[in-house]
Amino acid sequence: MTQTDFVFLESIVGIDNLFVLDEIEADFSHDELGTIQHAPEAHVYITNKDQVSKIMKYANLNLIPVTVRGTGTGLVGACVPIYGGILMDTSKMNHILELDEVNMTLRVEPGVLLFEIYEYVEKQHFFYGPDPGEKSATIGGNISTNAGGMRAVKYGVTRDWIRGLEVVLPSGEFIKTGGKVVKNSTGYSIKDLIIGSEGTLGIIVEATLKLIPLPKQSLSLLVPFKNRIEAIEAVPKVISLQSLPTAVEFMDKQALKYSEEYLGKKIPNANFEAYLLISFDGNSKVQTEQDIEEVSRACIEQFNALDAFLIDTDERKSSVWSARGAFLEAIKASTTQIDECDVVLPRSEITEFLSFTREVSDKLNVRIPYFGHAGDGNLHIYFCKDEMIDQDWKSVLQQGFQLLYQKAFEMGGLVSGEHGIGYAKKEYLEQQVGHSQIKLMRGIKQVFDPNQILNPGKII
Amino acid sequence: MTQTDFVFLESIVGIDNLFVLDEIEADFSHDELGTIQHAPEAHVYITNKDQVSKIMKYANLNLIPVTVRGTGTGLVGACVPIYGGILMDTSKMNHILELDEVNMTLRVEPGVLLFEIYEYVEKQHFFYGPDPGEKSATIGGNISTNAGGMRAVKYGVTRDWIRGLEVVLPSGEFIKTGGKVVKNSTGYSIKDLIIGSEGTLGIIVEATLKLIPLPKQSLSLLVPFKNRIEAIEAVPKVISLQSLPTAVEFMDKQALKYSEEYLGKKIPNANFEAYLLISFDGNSKVQTEQDIEEVSRACIEQFNALDAFLIDTDERKSSVWSARGAFLEAIKASTTQIDECDVVLPRSEITEFLSFTREVSDKLNVRIPYFGHAGDGNLHIYFCKDEMIDQDWKSVLQQGFQLLYQKAFEMGGLVSGEHGIGYAKKEYLEQQVGHSQIKLMRGIKQVFDPNQILNPGKII
Repeated sequence: MTQTDFVFLESIVGIDNLFVLDEIEADFSHDELGTIQHAPEAHVYITNKDQVSKIMKYANLNLIPVTVRGTGTGLVGACVPIYGGILMDTSKMNHILELDEVNMTLRVEPGVLLFEIYEYVEKQHFFYGPDPGEKSATIGGNISTNAGGMRAVKYGVTRDWIRGLEVVLPSGEFIKTGGKVVKNSTGYSIKDLIIGSEGTLGIIVEATLKLIPLPKQSLSLLVPFKNRIEAIEAVPKVISLQSLPTAVEFMDKQALKYSEEYLGKKIPNANFEAYLLISFDGNSKVQTEQDIEEVSRACIEQFNALDAFLIDTDERKSSVWSARGAFLEAIKASTTQIDECDVVLPRSEITEFLSFTREVSDKLNVRIPYFGHAGDGNLHIYFCKDEMIDQDWKSVLQQGFQLLYQKAFEMGGLVSGEHGIGYAKKEYLEQQVGHSQIKLMRGIKQVFDPNQILNPGKII
Repeated sequence: MTQTDFVFLESIVGIDNLFVLDEIEADFSHDELGTIQHAPEAHVYITNKDQVSKIMKYANLNLIPVTVRGTGTGLVGACVPIYGGILMDTSKMNHILELDEVNMTLRVEPGVLLFEIYEYVEKQHFFYGPDPGEKSATIGGNISTNAGGMRAVKYGVTRDWIRGLEVVLPSGEFIKTGGKVVKNSTGYSIKDLIIGSEGTLGIIVEATLKLIPLPKQSLSLLVPFKNRIEAIEAVPKVISLQSLPTAVEFMDKQALKYSEEYLGKKIPNANFEAYLLISFDGNSKVQTEQDIEEVSRACIEQFNALDAFLIDTDERKSSVWSARGAFLEAIKASTTQIDECDVVLPRSEITEFLSFTREVSDKLNVRIPYFGHAGDGNLHIYFCKDEMIDQDWKSVLQQGFQLLYQKAFEMGGLVSGEHGIGYAKKEYLEQQVGHSQIKLMRGIKQVFDPNQILNPGKII
């Protein structure tokens, strides 16, 4: 980029919202995981959608790469500007625009944080269903990766809660897709193509989210098992009971130990080998308690659980869920570097896949802690570098990922449940979906972005 | 098409599954509504996916148009072979392939009928959520239009229940997208692009449906109001109560009268001006009854309802729901010809839109009965030709549709909630989404089908 480009950007966003070359902080060269690194030439805070359109028109004309970034909480390098150019930062475009109580929708700008959405709507007795682990992610980032989270068992993923999008195309044109409507059979679903496209097809400048009335009750059960296999094998059985849980999370002693060390406090009832953390919500106290009762009984009497602890007080809730929430940070803190596999499998295959992961760990002599959204078959598996030298680490990652993904594909699994493909998982996507589908994806990219200026080098 | 082409087709599907030229029955030149008509040159029953692939390869090479048809229950001409060529009939490719009880999925061929799916899974205590009015549609057709139906309020639309698809591209290549997995952030969602694409991007040869445990209870309320406005205005209020209904249907005296005449029997409590038919399901009798109780009370005490009749016996259920189910047939039977508008609006706009529809009816002097999925803002509005001469009819339709769609767009509505665009609604799609988005859709079509042989002339 040239001085002329910087002058143009300054004319659009003002001097306070533009950082160029050496002024750019190092944090903006990588995401949360940090394995993929490249600095932008200009770091631009946008504050409204007209700026986005003007910048895209200019970039498209001058063939300058543009990469969109929210709060950079991704794990696959999707927001890293690997070809330099403009890093378009949405974190200041963060207004909640409208709560429509009649249509039960919330219109937001892309930079609103997930926890801000929860806070805002819950105060008005509404509920936004998706529950990704990282609450300081932006909603734009959540939509771009089709983020999932723990409540997917009952409430689905981000895609299921997006009613409408306004998008700026690489050309600078605006399009609107969907709206405040519940049903939509109006041509190809451009909305669903944008969701999960990791900022490669267009820039989300406004989203209309679906809300529902806030469930009045929420309760959790911590259910210990003799070992991992018995815990995991109980999962599909729990889900096929009539009382649909909100979340079914798997945790083992090791993951809890990391959390205890990281948080510096003990977790109650943490002396068992493996656990399911099962939660329920609903509108009637009687009903939620009946659900809990039914599941507790079935776990102990039929599914080999050793006990079932009700997590009812605020203190116990906070203790157990903060332990669960800290897993990623705790694992990161336990080692020098991590890389992760976010595979999703049919629920029936989790036991076998985790046994295979243990085999890979032994074979490659690498520590591989994991935890997972067992209820929806989505596992987060972490390779830990520990004291390994760089060369060995690279080779372990390459062999390990190859083995795990290959096994996942054989079992009907997919490369990514909720973190996306970004830059880090490109080769595995191609292995999985094959040439015909990659060709379609490339063709679609070309239709949206003929000059390949928007987040180049990602997904495909 | 030439004799050589027919010989090729016979070599693939056998003589019993091929009908050419004059042998083709007139029914296969149109869909349920019958306004768009064109005969195919060859009507081919396919029975397996390899046949689909072979026929597509041949057609692609020889530039023969191919149009896929299920049971032809569409209303916008999407399955009408307007350029002739091959009509590929999926109705004999109708096997249920696998019920996976652990992963709660059902694998089916495209020609399985909707009511066959309900029957099959409910026998095994599972539940498939979408509930489109036409139960003898094929699942392939449902996916191709992203069919909605009455239970969308609680259970969403077909898109929300499709876990995976296997598709034959116009080139004859196979692709698989999704699977038995709950989450998916694995590249662009080709699955969601195929859903709702009305057979223009690829041919669905297998689908994996999501199931849930069958709710144990199901109850309905018939709630009468003084007039249409009061009934419709109660809808968003009912939905914002905590007890989420399965369906909220709007009916007026006139629509019920058509049904009574068509079915030749009286409907209980049918002497009011307007109604909401509200249903609930759940797993606990106590809970479902509590929901009904809460909603009845709120309707009468707060939302101006005149009464609330519990539809509890099998006889009452069958009587009320069969009246509701017969609306389309009853309206068709009441006149010489109909055409329909399947607009979807934000729930808050229904009252005003229906008042506008009355104005259009008066202004153009045409009878326009309607009914609707009030709970999800999707209205079915029927223009009736009655004794009008052809020329007037054409002009009334053109003016009437233009007025209604324009009004819908101003209110944030869309051309189609669940019936699709097909051939009949193309011009309104373009008016709605604008040039930029039509260009994207055309580009996507070109990527999938560069020779424009698959269902040409539809959507865009």
